[in-house]
Amino acid sequence: MTPKTVARTVIVGGGAGGIGAAGAAKAADPQGEVIVYTEYEDAAYSPCGIPYVHGREIPDFDRLFLAGKEAYVEAGIDIHYNSRVTSVDLARRQVAVEGEGDVAWDRLVIASGFDYADPGVPGSDLEGLYYVKNIRRAMEWDKVIDHVKVAVVIEASPLGLEMVTALAHRGIETHLVDPHPWALSEAADPDIAEPVQESWAEMGVKMHFNTRLEEFLGDSNGKVRGVRTSEGELPADLVVICTKKTPRNDLAAAAGIQIGSTGGIIVDERMATSAAGVWAAGDCIEVPHGVSNVPLQGLSGSHAYSQGKVAGTNAAGGNRKYQPVYVPWGMVAGKWMIGGVSFGETLATALGIPFVLGKAQGISRARYYPDMKKILVKLLAEPGTGRLIGAQLVGGEGIKERADFLAMCVKVGITLEDLAFMENVYSPPIGALNEPIALAAQNGLANLKG
Amino acid sequence: MTPKTVARTVIVGGGAGGIGAAGAAKAADPQGEVIVYTEYEDAAYSPCGIPYVHGREIPDFDRLFLAGKEAYVEAGIDIHYNSRVTSVDLARRQVAVEGEGDVAWDRLVIASGFDYADPGVPGSDLEGLYYVKNIRRAMEWDKVIDHVKVAVVIEASPLGLEMVTALAHRGIETHLVDPHPWALSEAADPDIAEPVQESWAEMGVKMHFNTRLEEFLGDSNGKVRGVRTSEGELPADLVVICTKKTPRNDLAAAAGIQIGSTGGIIVDERMATSAAGVWAAGDCIEVPHGVSNVPLQGLSGSHAYSQGKVAGTNAAGGNRKYQPVYVPWGMVAGKWMIGGVSFGETLATALGIPFVLGKAQGISRARYYPDMKKILVKLLAEPGTGRLIGAQLVGGEGIKERADFLAMCVKVGITLEDLAFMENVYSPPIGALNEPIALAAQNGLANLKG
Repeated sequence: MTPKTVARTVIVGGGAGGIGAAGAAKAADPQGEVIVYTEYEDAAYSPCGIPYVHGREIPDFDRLFLAGKEAYVEAGIDIHYNSRVTSVDLARRQVAVEGEGDVAWDRLVIASGFDYADPGVPGSDLEGLYYVKNIRRAMEWDKVIDHVKVAVVIEASPLGLEMVTALAHRGIETHLVDPHPWALSEAADPDIAEPVQESWAEMGVKMHFNTRLEEFLGDSNGKVRGVRTSEGELPADLVVICTKKTPRNDLAAAAGIQIGSTGGIIVDERMATSAAGVWAAGDCIEVPHGVSNVPLQGLSGSHAYSQGKVAGTNAAGGNRKYQPVYVPWGMVAGKWMIGGVSFGETLATALGIPFVLGKAQGISRARYYPDMKKILVKLLAEPGTGRLIGAQLVGGEGIKERADFLAMCVKVGITLEDLAFMENVYSPPIGALNEPIALAAQNGLANLKG
Repeated sequence: MTPKTVARTVIVGGGAGGIGAAGAAKAADPQGEVIVYTEYEDAAYSPCGIPYVHGREIPDFDRLFLAGKEAYVEAGIDIHYNSRVTSVDLARRQVAVEGEGDVAWDRLVIASGFDYADPGVPGSDLEGLYYVKNIRRAMEWDKVIDHVKVAVVIEASPLGLEMVTALAHRGIETHLVDPHPWALSEAADPDIAEPVQESWAEMGVKMHFNTRLEEFLGDSNGKVRGVRTSEGELPADLVVICTKKTPRNDLAAAAGIQIGSTGGIIVDERMATSAAGVWAAGDCIEVPHGVSNVPLQGLSGSHAYSQGKVAGTNAAGGNRKYQPVYVPWGMVAGKWMIGGVSFGETLATALGIPFVLGKAQGISRARYYPDMKKILVKLLAEPGTGRLIGAQLVGGEGIKERADFLAMCVKVGITLEDLAFMENVYSPPIGALNEPIALAAQNGLANLKG
């Protein structure tokens, strides 16, 4: 067993949560030891960039690496690569590491990430099923994609939207199979998804909504040749599985750490788990939604990184709180950018949350300026008070920045009235006379009063 | 004298303030009569677009027209073109209109706009001095510009920055003469202006800061041939005068309506002037700055339009309030976008307003994504509370949206702490892991506590 002389923080996982925690732990206790265990060959690359290399927007995978391994050595963070943690012993305060034996910790941060949900259909052992996650595997898959003529993407999740767009860019006949009635139906309203779907149609994508996957079909060599769905068979050289991210909670659950309704590890606002000295962050935990208080799991890399920083800081003796999330999100899908905050009409309705809607089509620059893009803004407000509780956006530019803004608005209680009369930059190449958010708020205000 | 049967709103001025007032007055009192007097041949075009047609970003002037004249007729707004209002009689509630005689009003909105400050040097009657304002004149000047080899732009005002950039794009040897030490020094800090100036240097622009204009020099035909400055003479075929916008207050002042320290007409929050039944909006008025309470004049077209709507609504019997301004601004200058809110270090220091600074260089997309742009964010916060009081930005995209966001933050009292831990969209093509505003706030928070 590795001897230790100073307080040791052990971190399970080398993704955004784990790396955020490692840096923060080192900052909070520079004398302390920080060891990160990752199953993979690398840490600190951006898995979020993989679909864009496949789509050829980014020319090569090397660009996705954030820092060389030596940067962590220099920062005093000891990353053990290809190292699987197989169990956590709370009583003895040690983890078992494959090939290393037991390693003692004074503080433990679990940032074990996610797995894609098992599609739960026959044929899942066939060759040609691609789960987008690890960069080394992605490099190998990219060469496979060179020879693919027909691909099927399973589920219109955020990753599914990115992969459909990437494969279509790559000139591959791409089919999307999803059991829901429109793309990204758990986050986006149908009027937000509609232009995305129209643009996919223009790009030659074949969409199969309201369609369940029933089987991966193989040939005599054990290679995938297609999928069977509730609506018939589709041939495919490649199947990309973009099911929901489920929390990897096995280590924590086996150790007796409390798990929540989403399957995510339960943490308090300091990212402390139910076990003393054990913290958690990233896709393996659940956190409360600021408006509905519903636990959420599987947010963005930015959330994982922020949670990691809170967990690492507190593990190493600091004191930081993580706040409820309002979940600004955004992405490129087809020829559009889509995004939102908190929830849209569909999800609010499903959750039984009453709302008043304000909706407007605006523009990103002066009407007459080249490359002006349309932006559709939908704002959801609490009846009575008019406080913003959610938003949805689709447009050609400025979606991310508006989603960030609106997330802060929801958090601090900004109303439709505040937004209806907001000041905005007006300059022909970068902003229109009327900010689209203000136009939507003006319409919402009329509905609120009407 | 024109007879009247219903309540008549007379509006002096057909710019953003006047047109905003006309539409709002008609909406608030659809039966009422609305007459707009403008000195020009047109109303409802975007003068803000003129520099971009000169710069050839926009292919023609026709695109700058917002609506045909028939649209106003249909909306029941009676615009009198080429009509100069020469006096206002408060006692008799009438205006004198050149060629029309006296016209009675029940409500009057003064939206008489601005003039460029007189440079106050000899030679101002020479041919070849261009004041950018009217679209018909701009069309004529554009043909002149085709033959210009050397141009001098007088003063690095917002319009000056646009015209320097436009003329340089047009391939003209362009000189900028400004008495201050850097570009846009009344609004932008030197570190915000610096990249703009570097990019102008790359574009071949010759900058003459700390340089006073002393004379327009003419040839024997009365045409400008150059300028004399405190630092010597510069030859020029064209001189573009981009001095400060001064309020056109002559009609109001002659009628005895109160004028403020900026020269702008004094209005209350309902845009009412000191005279009963008389309202005002746009570049001819002054409004209080939300943080410092200092009166401001000559804001954007968006501000004028909003003020016009408040004035028009209230004139026609409605009840709306205009709120203190925090002045988000933004523009393209050289190869950069610059912007801000409220004030930067230079102006805050000049006003004697104490502040804590947070500054960071961030990025607009994932580091590895094509066309990622750097963004420098500076946040000014109130010592003690950490409340945001101002911001400055320079970068390659997302400046307008961030300035809008930060203006709302200043208005509602958001702190550096709120911004340091804000949630943000992370998606490689549209947003980085760490929002640049959050990075600046984190640095500011360290300074606030340090």
